[in-house]
Formats: sequence, structure tokens, C-alpha cells
Amino acid sequence: MQFELSNEYRERFQEAVNGRDVEFIQQSLTGINPADISTLLYEFNAEDSKYVLDLLPSEVKAEIINDLDEDIRERFLKSFEPGEITEIVNHLDSDDAVDILNELSVKEREEVIAGIDNSEKEANILDLLRYEEDVAGGLMAKELIKANLNWTVVQCIEEIRRQAENVQKVYSVYVVDNEGKLLGRVSLKRIILADDKTKISDIYESDIISVETYMSEEEVAQIMSKYDLDAVPVVNVQGKLLGRITIDDVVDVITELAEEERNIMSGIAGDVEEDDSVWDLTKARLPWLIVGVIGGFISAKFIGVFEEELMRITAIAFFIPLIQATGGNVGIQSSSIVVQSLANPSVFGGSMFKRLGKVLLVAIINGLVLSLMVYGFNLLTGGEGNLSIIVSMALFFVVLIASFLGTVTPILLNKVGFNPALASGPFITTTNDLLGLAIYFYIVHLLI
Amino acid sequence: MQFELSNEYRERFQEAVNGRDVEFIQQSLTGINPADISTLLYEFNAEDSKYVLDLLPSEVKAEIINDLDEDIRERFLKSFEPGEITEIVNHLDSDDAVDILNELSVKEREEVIAGIDNSEKEANILDLLRYEEDVAGGLMAKELIKANLNWTVVQCIEEIRRQAENVQKVYSVYVVDNEGKLLGRVSLKRIILADDKTKISDIYESDIISVETYMSEEEVAQIMSKYDLDAVPVVNVQGKLLGRITIDDVVDVITELAEEERNIMSGIAGDVEEDDSVWDLTKARLPWLIVGVIGGFISAKFIGVFEEELMRITAIAFFIPLIQATGGNVGIQSSSIVVQSLANPSVFGGSMFKRLGKVLLVAIINGLVLSLMVYGFNLLTGGEGNLSIIVSMALFFVVLIASFLGTVTPILLNKVGFNPALASGPFITTTNDLLGLAIYFYIVHLLI
Repeated sequence: MQFELSNEYRERFQEAVNGRDVEFIQQSLTGINPADISTLLYEFNAEDSKYVLDLLPSEVKAEIINDLDEDIRERFLKSFEPGEITEIVNHLDSDDAVDILNELSVKEREEVIAGIDNSEKEANILDLLRYEEDVAGGLMAKELIKANLNWTVVQCIEEIRRQAENVQKVYSVYVVDNEGKLLGRVSLKRIILADDKTKISDIYESDIISVETYMSEEEVAQIMSKYDLDAVPVVNVQGKLLGRITIDDVVDVITELAEEERNIMSGIAGDVEEDDSVWDLTKARLPWLIVGVIGGFISAKFIGVFEEELMRITAIAFFIPLIQATGGNVGIQSSSIVVQSLANPSVFGGSMFKRLGKVLLVAIINGLVLSLMVYGFNLLTGGEGNLSIIVSMALFFVVLIASFLGTVTPILLNKVGFNPALASGPFITTTNDLLGLAIYFYIVHLLI
Repeated sequence: MQFELSNEYRERFQEAVNGRDVEFIQQSLTGINPADISTLLYEFNAEDSKYVLDLLPSEVKAEIINDLDEDIRERFLKSFEPGEITEIVNHLDSDDAVDILNELSVKEREEVIAGIDNSEKEANILDLLRYEEDVAGGLMAKELIKANLNWTVVQCIEEIRRQAENVQKVYSVYVVDNEGKLLGRVSLKRIILADDKTKISDIYESDIISVETYMSEEEVAQIMSKYDLDAVPVVNVQGKLLGRITIDDVVDVITELAEEERNIMSGIAGDVEEDDSVWDLTKARLPWLIVGVIGGFISAKFIGVFEEELMRITAIAFFIPLIQATGGNVGIQSSSIVVQSLANPSVFGGSMFKRLGKVLLVAIINGLVLSLMVYGFNLLTGGEGNLSIIVSMALFFVVLIASFLGTVTPILLNKVGFNPALASGPFITTTNDLLGLAIYFYIVHLLI
């Protein structure tokens, strides 16, 4: 049932675009889901994509533009006239329209808004523009169906009919009082099954989960997935119903948060993608590389302190990478496990003390196994006895301390309001590297 | 509107549990959303949790058990009699019931199934048990509303009424032919707005996205988020409608996939959590730590080859951590960026050649900046001139090669069917470490 992008079709389509074959393009894209057309267009350059888009009906065009990745859209829209953007915005829900408006310059934005013909839509958009993009107010759409508590089912159906065109997906009808305060919801199923004259007040559910406009998108995502909601109403501090957030937007938020976490863990600053400019990519990558280099330079100076020992026993140097890499690996594993429990607390009972005790136990087992392994390797390959013992001892303590730091750091970061995934990033890894070296050389210094 | 877990309440509740104060527990939990009760119970041990659960109405109890994290539930259910589990399963949708049954021993499972009183539910469950847990068939629920193409709206509403109790959330009514083959869907909105005598065939949408039973959960998640679906029907190879997957299950899949990726990136084998046993945690962590230790040991042997150079100029050893850490950081950054583009392709045009060219350019800029920085540091802190040049040169080449490998590895892994995030994991990092050292010592060897 899905549209298959065969290689033959791609080639044929490319030919059609090159030859500006309007008829083939329009015919072969008729009835195709806009999301599939997006996938196809990702393979073309901006100019060809614009050419194809201009041949499509404006509601399809609007959906495709709406589907695009934000960065790409921002660049892509630069080749559009304000009039064209207005046409797109006219076809979109208020929340999606506002996302696009936020990507334009102030002047363009004014021009686009001035061109909107529907005054209710214009008011909705102006209202939504007031919110930050990453709070509930910035995620919500104004399109929803609400019914007064005192209405009958027939009046409610009349309202659904009136709004049918504006509100594409109806999850439930929100019930409000005369002041517009949210009281509850009625599902469409209930409306279908109720008698026409039934009063809304007799069939609505009053225990409804809502979010307030200022809540962060993370909180909204957590609430919607905790309570398995398809849509959540948004209210202001007075409890007045202002909009609703649908699950598809929250799926995007969850995906973005996962991407953000991956970026933090890999030492990438900000939200960059492969198709960003060389300059953006460099800007995102250099800061953390510099942190790493500074750490490496401090390591160099630190090892320099032990020059005398190194000159006596060069073999000390051989094990620097082993100590460093193991410390890093253990630290990242530990923090990753903590980050996961912070994201979805799932511990039936269990205090901080018990947690750390367990971490220690796992670390002792890991440390013992690895130290004995390395000692065995060293024995088998004719390593010097004294140094072999030192290396294994150092490794054991490095595993212990890296486990402890890897566990405690994300918990502390979380407590003071930072993203705990930072603990798996290069800053902490660099610190861990240094600590590992310090332990190693301290033991060397003591025992040699 | 949400339930607030105040510290006072927690303490009061703990007291009530300790004192087995049935009345307080039942009264204070009446009307509370099961998801909130779950959160509260996460703070109690298994025995107390079971005590509280047994005081709740069985449908609330069922929802709470359904909400639990799989691992915890599996252990928790060990203290339940088959009869109690049957009671829970009776309250759940078929897909959730099957998830629980899959966690039981074969004998227990038989006993629970034998106790199910509703024969349709029993048939549904037996049918679903045939599917693997991570394919569309294993995600779907059998509860859905279907209408024959030839029915009228009234007949359709009759069917909704008949199924109202079984199907909690109705997203749309699926339209089938006489053989049960999926033809399309009608939204509830359309049914509400249509005249009673309208034929379904006149109002249904025939272009419907569906998935087949054997599709992987990743594919299902991708399709549902690509097309912004709240529910997707599942068909067999003959196109017969068998079930539906709802977005809440897919949100869980997306979250699990992100967790899996984090585990891979941090070198954790399998799906472990902080509250797993010491043995499970060790089993998940040791394999990759051992890989790292073996890599470290090979490094040691490798550096040993250059013992002579090291004895002459000990300072060579000082820069081992710098070279190694930078190689690792660059590699992880590069692969992370590629993993992201593989997850959501968003490049308007762009060939492999162009991609690598860009990677090279970014690497050259990063490499130059870092090398010059280190050279400057070395000059300022009185480093030996010749070695300073060698270190900076090696650093530059390490950045270049780590960028290249970090970019190519995930692409290759993805081509041969592995998770590209493996490229950010310890195996590749270890390889990168070794390569960095090789480059450094090779240049040392050439120039000293």
C-alpha cells in the first residue's frame, strides 16, 4: 500500500525534471502522499525541488514544506516570495504556520501575516507567535473543538460540523464553562453512542490531564507518554482552554531530545546535521575538541613530572593507553546506566546508599577480572614482574574511581539542572583520563 | 489538574502502608490515575507494592501492572498466583495481555489462558502469541472496529456500540470487504457528520497506509512518524485486516530504540538497567571492557617496539594521551553526525563524493586549529622544538584519519545490516586509539 521509490522511477523522474516534463511530473505525483513526495525531493537540489513543488496543488505543497527539516526549510524558503509563503501558511494548522513564520525575517513575517485572508487564523497565529518555541504554548495548535457544558449532543455535533474543515483530526471534544475554562472532555465514541438530546454535562469525563502554556516540551512529552495521551489540552494559569498539542508533535520532540542527547554524548555543541555548512559543523565540533586537547596537554605536563621514573623504566609509558582507555570506557558505561534510570525511574525501592553499594560491587568484579587479565597477559608475554603488579593495581583503582565518578556526576548534573548526558561527554571523559593517569603514576611513584 | 506527589503525602502514605491502614490507602487512591499510582509505588518494595495493589479495584490494578517496566514486572509477577494474573489479563487489551503472558513460564501461561472466561479474548490472545515481540504482529492489538463496505452508517454505529467496551480508543473505523480484506478507513468525524443511511462505500477513504505482520518495529515506528499516524492497521500478506497498532506503543518503541542506541554508544551489551542484578550488569559491561583492555594491551606491545626512541627522548611518552584522546573524540563526533543523517535522511541532493569532500574540509580546519594550538602551547611552555613539530603533525593526521574512519564506518555498518551507532562504540574507538598511536610513533620514527 505504500509508494515504492524504485530506481527506475527515480531515474525516469530525474529525466522528467531535467526535461521540464510538466505532464509526467504532475501525473505521476497525483494521489501520492506528500510525505512520499518529500522523500523523493530530498534527492534533488533546491532549484529542481522548487520547480516540482510549484507544479503541485497548493495544499500538497504546503504539507511538503511543513514536513521538511527545519534547517533545510529555512534555507529553502529564501527562494520563496512572501505571497507564496502566505499561500502555504493558509493551508496549515496554526502551530505549523507559526513554526514557518518563526524562520522568516521580521519584515517577511509581517508581509506573510498581512496576506492571510482568514481573520480567525490570523488572530490564532498572532496569539501563538507570543510563545517560545520549546514550551507547551509554542507546541500547541489553536484548532480544536470545544463544547459548552450546557450544550446537548446535537449542539456539539453542529459545532463539529462547523469546524470540520479547520480541525483535521478530532481526538475528543473539550468541554468548557461559560468563561472558557476547561472542565473535561467527551470522546467522539461517546458522542456517537449518545442520544441527540443528551446533555454534555451528563456524558463528559471531568478527570482530564492538561498542561499549562509555560511547561517545557520535555515535560509535555513526559506527561503525554506517561498517560498514553493522543492529544493534551493546553490551558493558561486561570485554567482557560487555549489550544491542544497532538502526539505527532510530541513524537518529533522525543526524537529531537534523543538527537540532542547523542550530540551531547559525542561532544557536538548544538544541533548540527551533516548537510549544514562547513563553518557550522566546525563551530559545533571545535569547542569540545579544544577541551580534549587542553586535557591532553595537561596530561603531557603531568606525565612530565614523572620524567625521572620514565627514564629509568621506559615500559611505564607502554601502559598509558591501557589505563586511559579503560578509565574512559568504565566512566561512560556507568554514566549511561544512570542517565537511563534518570530518564525513566523504574526502581521499586532503593536508596542512594544501596545504589552506590551496587555500583561498587559491579566495579570490584569488573576491576578484578580486568586486572587479573592484564596481569596474565603480562606474565605470558614476559612483562617485568614489578611493573605488571603496578599496572594491574592501578587498573583496579581506575575502574573503581571511574565507576564512582561516572555514577555520581550525572546525578549531580541532574540535581543542578543540567542534562545528565553531559557526564558521558568529552568534558567528563577528559577529567576521567587525567584522573586515571594520576592514579597510575602515583602508584608507580609509590612502588618503584 | 495533575496529582502532586508531595513529600508530606509520601510520608503519610508510607506510614499507612507500614500500619496496614486499609482505609487511608483506598480512600486516598480513589480516582487517582493509575499512572500516578505507579509512580508512587516505585518508591516501595515489592511486598508493600503488592499489598497496596491488592487493595485496589482489579481494573486499576491491571493498568498499573501493564504500565510497569518489563524487567520489573517479570520479577514482580513471580509473587502472583495464576488466578490473579488471569484477572489482570482479563482487563487488558490483547496486545498488553500477550506482553504479560510472554513473561511467564510455559506452565503458568497455560494456566492463565485456561482461566480467561471470554472466548473471543482467548482466541485473540492465542493468535497474537504466534508473533515475535519485535515485529508488527507482536505490537498489534486485535481490538478494533471494522465495517463492511456495504454497510450503512447506522450499521456501523451499531458495531461501534457492540464493541464500545472492548475498544477503548477508537481512532477510525476500518473498512473491509466480505473476505475481511482491508479496503480503507472512515474517521469518526465523518461518521458523526454523515446521514444515517449513507453507505460506508460513499464516505470511506481508500488510500490508507497499512503495515504487514512481519515488519520490524523500527519500520512500523518510521512509517507511523513519517505519515503522522495515530494508529495503523496491520494486514497479512493477503491483505486481510488482523489488528491495529496505536501510537502509544510506537512511542515506547522509539524510546527503547534511543535507549538501545545509547547502550551501544556506551559499550553496554544488551538491555540492562540500574536495577538489574549485579550479575546482569557485569555481564553487560565486561565484554566491551575486555575489548578495550585487549586494545590497550596491544597498544602497550606496539609502543614497546619503539622502546629505543622512548629511551632516547622520554618526552615522546608525554603526548600519548593527547594523540589518543583527540583521535577518539574526532572519531565519535564524525560517526555521530553520520548516524544522525542515516536515521533521518535530510540532504537535498549530495553524493557520497561530496559528503566525503566536506568531511575532509572540516577535518582539515579542525586539524589545523588543534595542531597550531598544541604547537603554541609547546612553544610557550618550553617544549623541545623538534618534538613539538612531530606532535602537531601527528595530531593533524590523526584528526584527518579519525574523521575519515568515523564517517565511513557507520555507513559501511549500515550497508551490511548492523546498527551504525556501533561506530561510536568501544570497538571502533579502540581501533581508532591504536591507529592514532601508530601514526604518532611512525612520524616519531621517521623524523627523530
